[in-house]
Amino acid sequence: LSIVATPDVEGLLWLDSMTVRSAPTSADIFRTPLSRKDLSSEDVMNRRHLWARNPTFAAIARYRDDLLWATRSWFRSQGFTEVTPPILTPVTLYDSSTAVPIAVNGESVFLTQCTAYYLEALSLGMGPVLAIGPSFRGAESRSRRHLVEYTHIKAEAPFMTLDDGRILVETWIAHLIEQLTAIHQALPDPVRPAKLPPAPPYRVMTHREAADILHAAGCALPENHAIGSSEEEQLSKLVGAPFWIAYPPADTEPFPYALKADDPTRVLVADLIANDGFGEILGLAQKHQSLDELVGRMGADGRDQDPAYAFVKETIAFGAPPRIAFGAGVERLIRWMLQLDHVKDAIPFPRVIRRRIYP
Amino acid sequence: LSIVATPDVEGLLWLDSMTVRSAPTSADIFRTPLSRKDLSSEDVMNRRHLWARNPTFAAIARYRDDLLWATRSWFRSQGFTEVTPPILTPVTLYDSSTAVPIAVNGESVFLTQCTAYYLEALSLGMGPVLAIGPSFRGAESRSRRHLVEYTHIKAEAPFMTLDDGRILVETWIAHLIEQLTAIHQALPDPVRPAKLPPAPPYRVMTHREAADILHAAGCALPENHAIGSSEEEQLSKLVGAPFWIAYPPADTEPFPYALKADDPTRVLVADLIANDGFGEILGLAQKHQSLDELVGRMGADGRDQDPAYAFVKETIAFGAPPRIAFGAGVERLIRWMLQLDHVKDAIPFPRVIRRRIYP
Repeated sequence: LSIVATPDVEGLLWLDSMTVRSAPTSADIFRTPLSRKDLSSEDVMNRRHLWARNPTFAAIARYRDDLLWATRSWFRSQGFTEVTPPILTPVTLYDSSTAVPIAVNGESVFLTQCTAYYLEALSLGMGPVLAIGPSFRGAESRSRRHLVEYTHIKAEAPFMTLDDGRILVETWIAHLIEQLTAIHQALPDPVRPAKLPPAPPYRVMTHREAADILHAAGCALPENHAIGSSEEEQLSKLVGAPFWIAYPPADTEPFPYALKADDPTRVLVADLIANDGFGEILGLAQKHQSLDELVGRMGADGRDQDPAYAFVKETIAFGAPPRIAFGAGVERLIRWMLQLDHVKDAIPFPRVIRRRIYP
Repeated sequence: LSIVATPDVEGLLWLDSMTVRSAPTSADIFRTPLSRKDLSSEDVMNRRHLWARNPTFAAIARYRDDLLWATRSWFRSQGFTEVTPPILTPVTLYDSSTAVPIAVNGESVFLTQCTAYYLEALSLGMGPVLAIGPSFRGAESRSRRHLVEYTHIKAEAPFMTLDDGRILVETWIAHLIEQLTAIHQALPDPVRPAKLPPAPPYRVMTHREAADILHAAGCALPENHAIGSSEEEQLSKLVGAPFWIAYPPADTEPFPYALKADDPTRVLVADLIANDGFGEILGLAQKHQSLDELVGRMGADGRDQDPAYAFVKETIAFGAPPRIAFGAGVERLIRWMLQLDHVKDAIPFPRVIRRRIYP
């Protein structure tokens, strides 16, 4: 591939993608990245710095800005304060083998996998808080829904239960869909989706109900097993609209989430699964009020003894109200709303697992 | 230090910092962190997760949110699109020894030191762009103005000269000061500054003029030397108001900045220095239009041959308009506006050079 400039108007080239021959210029990049005969997917990825000259790419970048602006405005109007949690951290949400490690001044820490520990500390003093920033995953999951570096919308709010949180999230999504309707209509043809996502409210099914639906469809889920991507996709086809899966088995979820009072084998967690096979787009949880319960759950992998996690315990050592946390991936939201093929189409410079970091 | 809870009202403790004995509760933390007899500075840093229960801390966090909201609103009103440049990058702005390195899947890259290469690529397709996110510095500079991880307001705009950029920046700062006046008045007493920063316009002095002023005050600056923190402080006292230092020697500045047409030993750069010794708060530059000039400047340390920088050259290979870039540190802005002792007081979980990363 050689990118050759044929400027029609000297000095205006940078405004007109059509004058950069072989540069991606239309929807087929987003729909079928491998179909363009003279461009491999890797060629396109290596010329990402020229993509902003492509009207389709620029439209998605503007859409992203509008979606984040609408999100910030809405949470601000609901009394949330936007805060800045750290990227460099000694703690992880999942097993540390799934985080991106980094040595800073000889000390082994991680790039943040989830900022919830910090948002929890802030929200217990300040009330509801929001943070929109990068999160990192080191796990070897190369799917259409995963990036090494992605943008995470995180919020924590005290004095809310899981049900309150579900209403909060659905109200925000309803607001987004309403705000973005006009924006969708103004999108250039190649990227304008055929339809808007279905508006809330969404059906709530328990994890047990989901397992029963899968079982009835001939796809048995082992007892106390997480619902994976392929099961989500199957459910998505069966249900036909976005839906929540609530109360998964405690063993399949990270330690910060509260146990269900009437069934302590389950946790107060609800994941929102998109329609049309776009998979999980956000997770919501109610968190421990009891220090004993928290420490008990941390003990499963010894984190209760790890000094790096001392502050997590201290944060609720003086008491804590019922409260919720949620996290949504911006690229997954955009992929769902615009029906894009891959989350990498929703961020200007994607960092894809096992691909070199360039440009 | 032991933090002991004495809850007056069971279940409401987290709302009332006064019930956590020995936890920082008043302005002396921010004014003289070492003066509180039973708390070392390190004790305070290690209990940062409890600080949000301190009204002064919470007020600064809310101020930070208001400042960033006012910034986003203003740039949006001026037609800027907010974009998301990557954190993981193969390229650095300054010498790579001053960046934070990281191995990702066996590949050696860096945490972003400056996102300008990516904003440049986007702005040449999309028009003016803004990005607010983390930047990282690995240099061993332990001052009241440096953090390993800080929040960087970055913007790039095509069709602007250095002078246009100065007006853009001054108009934004004037807007901030105006917006924050009412917010200042509502701040709790300990953190409310005695005065607002002086509003623009600010005096513009050339680097040569600054050197002459220093010389006249008995502090000679060697020819072609950068103006460092101590010289800035001296100038700050002599001038008494914020001021710009324009056209520093090319050898003291990174390669992306354009040479001054009538004096190619100087670059089209202007740094804004705050009053009262708060030092540099932002840097502004006009960038190369000529690929030859860019490649020539990259050659100084061999980056013209480094394949990681190929996209930087390709970005302007097809022509480029006059355009500007600027970067401002959020913690420095807040420190200046609230007259805080240290930038670490302006971010909830500071990452200070040579201090362990905790909480």
